[in-house]
Amino acid sequence: MLQTFASPISALLDARAEGHSLPAGLYTREDVFEADLEVFFRRHWICIGLECDVPEPGDASVIDIGKTSLIVLRDDDGDIRVMHNVCRHRGSRLLDPGKTIVSKLVCPYHTWTYELTGELSYAPHMGKNFDKECRSLKAAAFKSVGGLIYVCLSDNPPEDIERLIDVMAERLAPYDISNAKVAYESDVIEQGNWKLTIENNRECYHCSANHPELCVSFVDLDFGFDPDALSLEDRAQAEEHFSLYAERTKRWEADGYPSAAVEQLVNCTTNFRTQRLVISGAGESQTPDATAASAKLLGTILRKDLGDMHLWGHNSWNHFMGDHAVVSIVIPLSADKTLVRTKWLVHKDAVEGVDYDLEKLTNVWIATTEQDAELVARSHAGIEDPAYVPGPYSPFSETNLDKFTSWYIDRMRAHGY
Amino acid sequence: MLQTFASPISALLDARAEGHSLPAGLYTREDVFEADLEVFFRRHWICIGLECDVPEPGDASVIDIGKTSLIVLRDDDGDIRVMHNVCRHRGSRLLDPGKTIVSKLVCPYHTWTYELTGELSYAPHMGKNFDKECRSLKAAAFKSVGGLIYVCLSDNPPEDIERLIDVMAERLAPYDISNAKVAYESDVIEQGNWKLTIENNRECYHCSANHPELCVSFVDLDFGFDPDALSLEDRAQAEEHFSLYAERTKRWEADGYPSAAVEQLVNCTTNFRTQRLVISGAGESQTPDATAASAKLLGTILRKDLGDMHLWGHNSWNHFMGDHAVVSIVIPLSADKTLVRTKWLVHKDAVEGVDYDLEKLTNVWIATTEQDAELVARSHAGIEDPAYVPGPYSPFSETNLDKFTSWYIDRMRAHGY
Amino acid sequence: MLQTFASPISALLDARAEGHSLPAGLYTREDVFEADLEVFFRRHWICIGLECDVPEPGDASVIDIGKTSLIVLRDDDGDIRVMHNVCRHRGSRLLDPGKTIVSKLVCPYHTWTYELTGELSYAPHMGKNFDKECRSLKAAAFKSVGGLIYVCLSDNPPEDIERLIDVMAERLAPYDISNAKVAYESDVIEQGNWKLTIENNRECYHCSANHPELCVSFVDLDFGFDPDALSLEDRAQAEEHFSLYAERTKRWEADGYPSAAVEQLVNCTTNFRTQRLVISGAGESQTPDATAASAKLLGTILRKDLGDMHLWGHNSWNHFMGDHAVVSIVIPLSADKTLVRTKWLVHKDAVEGVDYDLEKLTNVWIATTEQDAELVARSHAGIEDPAYVPGPYSPFSETNLDKFTSWYIDRMRAHGY
Repeated sequence: MLQTFASPISALLDARAEGHSLPAGLYTREDVFEADLEVFFRRHWICIGLECDVPEPGDASVIDIGKTSLIVLRDDDGDIRVMHNVCRHRGSRLLDPGKTIVSKLVCPYHTWTYELTGELSYAPHMGKNFDKECRSLKAAAFKSVGGLIYVCLSDNPPEDIERLIDVMAERLAPYDISNAKVAYESDVIEQGNWKLTIENNRECYHCSANHPELCVSFVDLDFGFDPDALSLEDRAQAEEHFSLYAERTKRWEADGYPSAAVEQLVNCTTNFRTQRLVISGAGESQTPDATAASAKLLGTILRKDLGDMHLWGHNSWNHFMGDHAVVSIVIPLSADKTLVRTKWLVHKDAVEGVDYDLEKLTNVWIATTEQDAELVARSHAGIEDPAYVPGPYSPFSETNLDKFTSWYIDRMRAHGY
Repeated sequence: MLQTFASPISALLDARAEGHSLPAGLYTREDVFEADLEVFFRRHWICIGLECDVPEPGDASVIDIGKTSLIVLRDDDGDIRVMHNVCRHRGSRLLDPGKTIVSKLVCPYHTWTYELTGELSYAPHMGKNFDKECRSLKAAAFKSVGGLIYVCLSDNPPEDIERLIDVMAERLAPYDISNAKVAYESDVIEQGNWKLTIENNRECYHCSANHPELCVSFVDLDFGFDPDALSLEDRAQAEEHFSLYAERTKRWEADGYPSAAVEQLVNCTTNFRTQRLVISGAGESQTPDATAASAKLLGTILRKDLGDMHLWGHNSWNHFMGDHAVVSIVIPLSADKTLVRTKWLVHKDAVEGVDYDLEKLTNVWIATTEQDAELVARSHAGIEDPAYVPGPYSPFSETNLDKFTSWYIDRMRAHGY
Repeated sequence: MLQTFASPISALLDARAEGHSLPAGLYTREDVFEADLEVFFRRHWICIGLECDVPEPGDASVIDIGKTSLIVLRDDDGDIRVMHNVCRHRGSRLLDPGKTIVSKLVCPYHTWTYELTGELSYAPHMGKNFDKECRSLKAAAFKSVGGLIYVCLSDNPPEDIERLIDVMAERLAPYDISNAKVAYESDVIEQGNWKLTIENNRECYHCSANHPELCVSFVDLDFGFDPDALSLEDRAQAEEHFSLYAERTKRWEADGYPSAAVEQLVNCTTNFRTQRLVISGAGESQTPDATAASAKLLGTILRKDLGDMHLWGHNSWNHFMGDHAVVSIVIPLSADKTLVRTKWLVHKDAVEGVDYDLEKLTNVWIATTEQDAELVARSHAGIEDPAYVPGPYSPFSETNLDKFTSWYIDRMRAHGY
């Protein structure tokens, strides 16, 4: 007799073998998905957007994470506020999904009215003894990570976010991401578990067979390789790349651009990695020919050869280049569906058609995201198959997957699973 | 560690705070939905249609409530019968959804044949010893409430339906609803829990901001207001309305039209409220200009100024006016989907285009139902959000919601939850 | 209080009454569906296709059973292989659904490469110490039943498949099904439980009212009738049919064509029944006029009057006639959805439009399958209704349903339910 779903989640965590992909249930079970949402998307810091999504006072943007709907807005003092999109009367949604401009937040149901600070200022029919003060909109904990909006939905946000903020504030200062312009935005729904989306992003083992556009500017060697498998020619090329890499890093650091890898991927609460990577070919940007897509560079930057400052979080990946940045955010929709939201940033004064060509700007990551969606779907479908057993990660090019899944197991345990 | 759905339903009932909307799980959980279907749609009387849906012998109408499918038909003696749409052989559906005309009920699978009384009269291949007598179609308990069809799917139907029947038989006699004509019918699926559909119907606090069409003829003051919040002018208007209301009620009653409010909303099994309400403006009917939509009045009625006899049940609301009636029935489809079926009734001899204009007849409640569907959906979405906490009902204009949710809690407890 | 789904599956098995359709939950519950998949579609032999689906080396066909995806292919030695469509690295699907031609199986994710035997021959990035030998694609147990592909997904396949193989090898030899041509293929999704699909196939009580096309060539008397219900004329016709049947069977057997009924329907693991049936009317084939659809007969057959060799399994039914064969395979998709895949076979050299007319070939079973889908859907909908109670099978024409449901109960018990 088969006892479907009988095993507790902890048994799945116990069954995990180091160096291998996770037991199927951790990718496919609904109860694990609910636990993941609670642990990784409510009790950890997650990236949900950008300060420059709401550039002016009164700009508001609604972002849904699971059943949670957040209003990100810029208040009259120019500060960012993140509040729950739930009226304190009978729970109605205040704003529809998407972007809008507001002077106050008026619930369409019974016209309860909130200031942009979240304070309830008008509640008809409630009588003179009604206490409005305890009925402000609920706020969510918010931090700016160099212009990226991070929130934590728990009352007890992890404190080690400060290290991420410190590292990135310095690294991203010249890019002035808070004042960038979102030139393009795309939502892709991948038919797979969010952890497969992240694992797929953590290796470039699959790049050469799947990402012709990305491979022009991206160096898969940076994320590991098997030295014994290289031909003499490839080995020479690899050596050349790594000496170039060392030289450039040294020069960048000397010029005041922090570039060395900083990572906390295991034995930590907030998971991240950043490093300034070399762009190959023309060396400027992740575009079809590796030259810059935007003539106007980001922030205060004056040179195109600053490489690719990458940043990983457990629900995001980012590439900051001299001319533009690409920010990708991962929001799980169900055990087998994951939203990947990508935003392309340019200087706030860059004009489409004049300073940049939108097709050139977006070509590489639109193509790459579609290719990845296909791979994640294939992978999820196979893992749902009873014939799946966890397979071995490459000890060269999939070590970051092992770190990610190890961190996943640790964090689940830390939350009592 | 989050224990999803771990709390028993009784803990949700315990958590309910008087004067507040219900804990989220009572609106959103699948197990609560199943319990609701069992308690409120199987063990209580529910309104499912009208005698005049099947005016002639042989007329049949199939109505689905959850997985239950009922055949409502008029038999050869002119009596209404309500039977389960399930063949006693291998369970096949006998009739398709919708209306039809039948002389017998013949199962399309193996031609088992039932009379319109439900008796099995033909069952081939079953042999000479087969006892047809114990294989009649199962009947559902049925009562006519002034021409409305109420059924109870349990073997033990609540007895207090008799009071509702007595009250409404007298009130509805002049309208002769049993012999009316269904001029129009609409099905709207609301994206919310059935209790939110009912709560939304139990207050007019949201009317002024949302129902411009209804507000021409409907007086929101009738369903409560905050006296301290009225301007001097509004207060004078309110006083005028209530003295008009007292005068009209007195006159109607003197003319033999029972009008005063009768309600059993709490501490009872069968939940209802009825009252003859004043129609504002032209004072005749719920139409865009408050004048009658049909020149031929309902039943034996000779005057257009009989106001709006409203009737609430826990799955219905109704408005009976001199010229037409609007009957709305609520059928839950899932925890977050509810069917609202509305029927517009006119005199059986009224002719479209001659006696009434269909657009004028249906305008107000088609618009109002669409607006309400939008509000119920917003409300349900917000209640699904982990940030939702039950909010306070207005002590003036949402007292009937508090009565409804109190009754809901009581009835759940009465059934062992 | 209703305890939804509280009863264990074993209580449903206990509740089964002999001679009656099953308790509703055995047809409708999700937990029973999962158990059915495990017991009947993983631990028993099931028919999934035909050797002639992949006629040439390198031909591959992907077949999904629940979440299991199988690759059926013909290897370089001309042997059939059945392997799981799951890469041994990180679980990616190797091939898409449908048919293709391959020289090796290359995973699109990281280019792990398998030979047609399933051996892993290439796995880049894994290092020199990586053991490819233990990473072959997993094979599924496979048997050819006269050219039909049977698989068992458990490690412990039932042994009594051998009797089925022996019986059918002899019977099907002249039809040479392994080398037939699939002339047409159709997938129909029935909105009902797989057991209702099978029950519907096990009786012809419903034929006269529902299958006008099939009734031209098919004799419903063969599957039982109530002698007392026959008119004198019908009785004479029945007697004539059975004496014809006896005479033909005798002649066929004398000519070397085994024809008598062989059945193991109860008290066995592998469920089957075969018999050579008389075709009525023109007597040749299941076509609109009962004459052969294909001028070129199957295999080595030289006469059109070999009747209809039928074969039932617990997930299939088949009709082998002189000119063509019809093979139907049942694959459950959910508790209330079942795929019926039908294939029409002709001699491999038969040419459409020359030797056979496709419309004539497929007419009867396309129509019959559509009609059956409608009946199964009606039946499932009614069984989901709380008003359903198991009804009596006809003691004459539904005895094979009683055998099927008895076998079902026995097999569930044998697997610990």
